[in-house]
Amino acid sequence: MESKFFMLSQRLTQQLQFLIEIDKLKEILRQSLLTQSQRRENSAEHCWHLAMMAMILSEYANESIDLMRVIKMALIHDIVEIDAGDTYIYDDHYDETVKAAQEQKAALRIFGLLPPDQAIELQTLWEEFENRQTPSARFAAALDRLMPLLHNYHTQGISWQKHGVTRKQVEMCNYPRITDGAKTLAEFAQALVEDAVKKGYLSDFPVNHLSKPD
Amino acid sequence: MESKFFMLSQRLTQQLQFLIEIDKLKEILRQSLLTQSQRRENSAEHCWHLAMMAMILSEYANESIDLMRVIKMALIHDIVEIDAGDTYIYDDHYDETVKAAQEQKAALRIFGLLPPDQAIELQTLWEEFENRQTPSARFAAALDRLMPLLHNYHTQGISWQKHGVTRKQVEMCNYPRITDGAKTLAEFAQALVEDAVKKGYLSDFPVNHLSKPD
Repeated sequence: MESKFFMLSQRLTQQLQFLIEIDKLKEILRQSLLTQSQRRENSAEHCWHLAMMAMILSEYANESIDLMRVIKMALIHDIVEIDAGDTYIYDDHYDETVKAAQEQKAALRIFGLLPPDQAIELQTLWEEFENRQTPSARFAAALDRLMPLLHNYHTQGISWQKHGVTRKQVEMCNYPRITDGAKTLAEFAQALVEDAVKKGYLSDFPVNHLSKPD
Repeated sequence: MESKFFMLSQRLTQQLQFLIEIDKLKEILRQSLLTQSQRRENSAEHCWHLAMMAMILSEYANESIDLMRVIKMALIHDIVEIDAGDTYIYDDHYDETVKAAQEQKAALRIFGLLPPDQAIELQTLWEEFENRQTPSARFAAALDRLMPLLHNYHTQGISWQKHGVTRKQVEMCNYPRITDGAKTLAEFAQALVEDAVKKGYLSDFPVNHLSKPD
């Protein structure tokens, strides 16, 4: 869009450029599979689903939360992936420091497309989510860990199996964070994982141990 | 999920069933194309993008709005499409009365999966959006008409051309509703359409008139 032609204010031009830029989040694929077609979910869909989850499950937050902030965090929390890509939580090959630097750079570029006041608002929301230092952020982060468990369970653990993910990894990666934000939902997550193991969706042992049980 | 096994409260069981059900919205395809891959957008992605638009462009609402309600409306406004399908606004072959009845039935079924208090909340939000009788609903509805214009413009009008949509149709279908919710954004929409015609993305005439100009 040529702002001269349109004679838009610089502010509206920046806002529209940001809104067009974030269309790219719909192209970022996650490891979660959809319950129906079993195609890989993208990060924009995930952000929508997480915002819906916040709206519906807010009563389970451990502490008093600001629901508007939780929903905003859910909506924006993965926008950095446009530049930095999605990180699979069970992938231990990536360097956390490098990843954090990539995401910080992405946040500055993408949120920086907005007018300064809104760039600061989104950067602040994103950092709040990442740092989990407020009740709202801890609740949002808990939901962000619960959602993929639901997807895995409802697609018979295909993605867990594909990546050789074990029960122990699922527990270590998810329980502490879900408990930190929503204890009741952590209890549910435990029961879900228990049942997933029972149904054969998730292995109790590392893949290479499966063929030689004690 | 078997609630007996999980020993969940009936309330949480209902909430989780709803959250799993709405995964289906990611399978509902719209006519809008993504700016990058030019694949068809789905309704869940669209709801996310609309919620982001509400967050970023709220200052352009004609009247004082409740941003939380606007964002919630954006998030849920298309959930009925899981049963009723997406409606292309330029398609004059469908029966509005039949469509409205299908959507009402869908709302009752899908929102009805939730505990009664939340079912009522979402039904009320959806009806508010549909009826456009509050400033918040009028603003949300305006954004819902603006977004596809942006997508069409940024994909060189492929979808407009595919369906033989003309400038007149775009103007009649969109300007009144955008003006009703956000006058400044309606002015921008007019300039966008003007430029789309100039660039050849959108035809000034019905397709069958193009080959025989006066």
